[in-house]
This record gives sequence, C-alpha cells and structure tokens, in this order.
Amino acid sequence: MILVKRGKTKDVYQNDNGMLQLLFKDDATGANGVFDPGANTVGLTLPGIGKRNLELSKYLFELLRNNGIATHYIDCDVDSSTMTVLPATVFGHGVEVICRFVATGSFIRRYGDYVEDGAVLPAYVEITLKDDERNDPLITQAGLQVLGIMSAEEYTNLVTKTQDISKLIKAEFNNYGIDLLDIKLEFGKNQETNEIMLIDELSSGNMRVSENGNVLKPFELIDKVLSQV
Amino acid sequence: MILVKRGKTKDVYQNDNGMLQLLFKDDATGANGVFDPGANTVGLTLPGIGKRNLELSKYLFELLRNNGIATHYIDCDVDSSTMTVLPATVFGHGVEVICRFVATGSFIRRYGDYVEDGAVLPAYVEITLKDDERNDPLITQAGLQVLGIMSAEEYTNLVTKTQDISKLIKAEFNNYGIDLLDIKLEFGKNQETNEIMLIDELSSGNMRVSENGNVLKPFELIDKVLSQV
Repeated sequence: MILVKRGKTKDVYQNDNGMLQLLFKDDATGANGVFDPGANTVGLTLPGIGKRNLELSKYLFELLRNNGIATHYIDCDVDSSTMTVLPATVFGHGVEVICRFVATGSFIRRYGDYVEDGAVLPAYVEITLKDDERNDPLITQAGLQVLGIMSAEEYTNLVTKTQDISKLIKAEFNNYGIDLLDIKLEFGKNQETNEIMLIDELSSGNMRVSENGNVLKPFELIDKVLSQV
Repeated sequence: MILVKRGKTKDVYQNDNGMLQLLFKDDATGANGVFDPGANTVGLTLPGIGKRNLELSKYLFELLRNNGIATHYIDCDVDSSTMTVLPATVFGHGVEVICRFVATGSFIRRYGDYVEDGAVLPAYVEITLKDDERNDPLITQAGLQVLGIMSAEEYTNLVTKTQDISKLIKAEFNNYGIDLLDIKLEFGKNQETNEIMLIDELSSGNMRVSENGNVLKPFELIDKVLSQV
C-alpha cells in the first residue's frame, strides 16, 4: 500500500487494486483542546475516537447506500480503523458543502446582524473552499464557475444532493431523539463513470447534533446513535 | 432640513419636500492614512475630495440617466457639496453589489489559491452585507433569501443591473484610456414606485481604476475623467 496523503483526521493509502484505504486517526478538529467541527486545525486528540468515527461513518454510509445515494464507500474494517473507498476527483482543490437546519457557528459570525444563534433554517446550503491558509472562504455559484471549479449545473446538483442526504440523516437522528443542526459534506467524481458521489467521512467531525438543546460531544453523539441501531 | 444620518464619507439630510440631500465630505475609506476603496473604515481626510467626488458622481449619474438606467439622482449643487436624491428603501440593512473585471483586493484574499492578482474576470458579480462589525461578509443568493433580505428574482435583477451599469462605465472610461478594475454599487427601491434603482454615489470611493497598469489615486482618477469630458 502506498501512502497518498496525511490528512488532519485521516491518512489516505492506495491499495494494489487502485482502491483507497482511509485510516481514521484519533485527532479531532478544534482549537486549544476544544472540539469544533467547524474548525480546520487539529485542536485535540481523543483516544479511541478514530474507530468510533469509523463505526458511525459505516452506519451512515450504509444507510445512504440502502437509500440509493451514490457514495465512495465500499466497506470498512473497524479493527484496523480503515474504510475502503473508490478513488474520486474532487472539485478544484476540494470544496465543502454545508447544510444548515439551525443558524450557528460561522453562519452567525457572518450574519449575526440578521439572525439569532439557534434560529431555524430551511436546509440552507453553502459551499466553502478547502483552504486552511485562507480559513475556508465562502464562495458563490458565480465564483465557483468563474474560477473553473464547477459549472452552474454541478452547483445545483450538489445543492440538491446535499439537501437529500442531510434530510435523510436528520430524519434518522430524529428517531433517536437527537437533532442535526448542521452537517458538512464533501463530493467528488467517480473516476470511471464521472458520476458525482459523496466522499470523505460521515462522523462526529462533520456535524453538530444536539439533544434537548445541548450540543453533543463527539463520543456522546456516536454512543447515542450506535447504541440504538 | 433634518439630519437623517452621519455616514463615513457623506451625511444625509431630508429637505422639506421629502427628498434627501447628500453632503459629500472630505473623508475617504482606508486604513492608516492609505486610501482603499475596499475598506469600510475612514482612514484619511483628503481636502477637497468631497466636491470632486460629487462632480464625478454627477457626471456618471447623468451618463446613466442618458442611457435609461433608473437611479436615485435628481440633481446636485457642487458649491454646497450636495446631491439631491430620491429616498429609497434598502435591502435589509444595506448591501453592496460588486462587479469585478479584474481579480484583486478581497477577491484575491479569499480566492488566491485559484487565481493570480490581476487576472481578468468576466464582469463577475458578488454581494456583501454592509456590516462594519463583521467586515462586510460575502453572502450567496440562498443566504439573502433565507435571511429575508431579497428574493431570488431580485438577486438576478441586481446582478443584471450591476453588469449593465458597470460595463457602461467601463466602456466610458476606456474612451479616456483608463481601465475599470472593479466597482461597488448600492441599490434601493423607490419608495413610491417600488422600482429598483441605483443609489449612493459613483465616485473614487466606489471603484478601482488603472492607467497603464497603475491603480489611480482618488484625485488622479477624477482629474483624468473630468478633464476629458
């Protein structure tokens, strides 16, 4: 296996048949030891979180597969903390697609003049560039088009896919008495078919979830979901 | 006359017949004494710039009027540094609509991972909220809609109007051998007819203009245009 890339929370390897193996690590995003799924720096290590995030990802990717949604997921091996996935071509140098059901985090930092933290949003979708140096800047459909990152049609496609996936996960979590506040997805194109598919992980690092108004910490979220399935 | 508002570069009064009078001041946006049309703080005072900006605004608003474009402009009196305009209802707490023919300034600070400073852009339009405290955040069509600031139709309308106005000014400036790099416009609704119209000023504080690759300073820009008309 060849090491392709060391990421913040995962390392990426390529195996002999061209598939990728994602190794889930115990690092989490945040700052000064405080977890924040909206951060783009490694802020803390949570022993055991890699395996648990992999288990949540496995559960959610299989949920999506059962609902006919295209993803890069092939299978996973929890013992070795690895998920096997299809290789994908990302948009530009990578984008993040965020779906918000509640106004919080960077949305409030930008638009707090118009909305209170905690206000309900109707599956609002926005795209940011993966660019640590520039703090993951927001970008519009016109901006993505003018920089050659994606076409107007691909933008509309990503917005619809993101709303479908986010609503499905929100509905699933509602069965367990917890609320999905926002979720950050990544997409890429299948290198053989060119089909747009969900990539990356679906774990405590990608989403804010609350129970009775309190945002759940990473292990709390995972335990809550996996203890009930 | 009643003082309605003290602004950064203009004060706004209401006269007896309900029209507004904009008093152009000698303050300019920037930081630490350096002029920057993209800044949202008063950074310097340029003695005489208020009257000269008013003269450039008068010239450009009359150019637009002659081209059938709706604006708030009624007339102006250079001696008293005032422009008389129609009252308008702004979108939300005010938005700025930027048209970029060249990638520079905040566009590069956000998207420098994809484009070089100075690259040509095809009349790319983006909207920011007027919010000094939050440094005028960028907002998407979906964001403007979800916050109740404007509808999707109004967004499309503003983009088209902004491109039309910006291209007209760019073409006019090209006649004088200078290049419009970017321009920041404001719009409001006519309080009687609800028609969307261009508001604010059209001066050295709203645009970056270059000659032979050098960005012109405020007085240079105004002198260049007005000496040739």
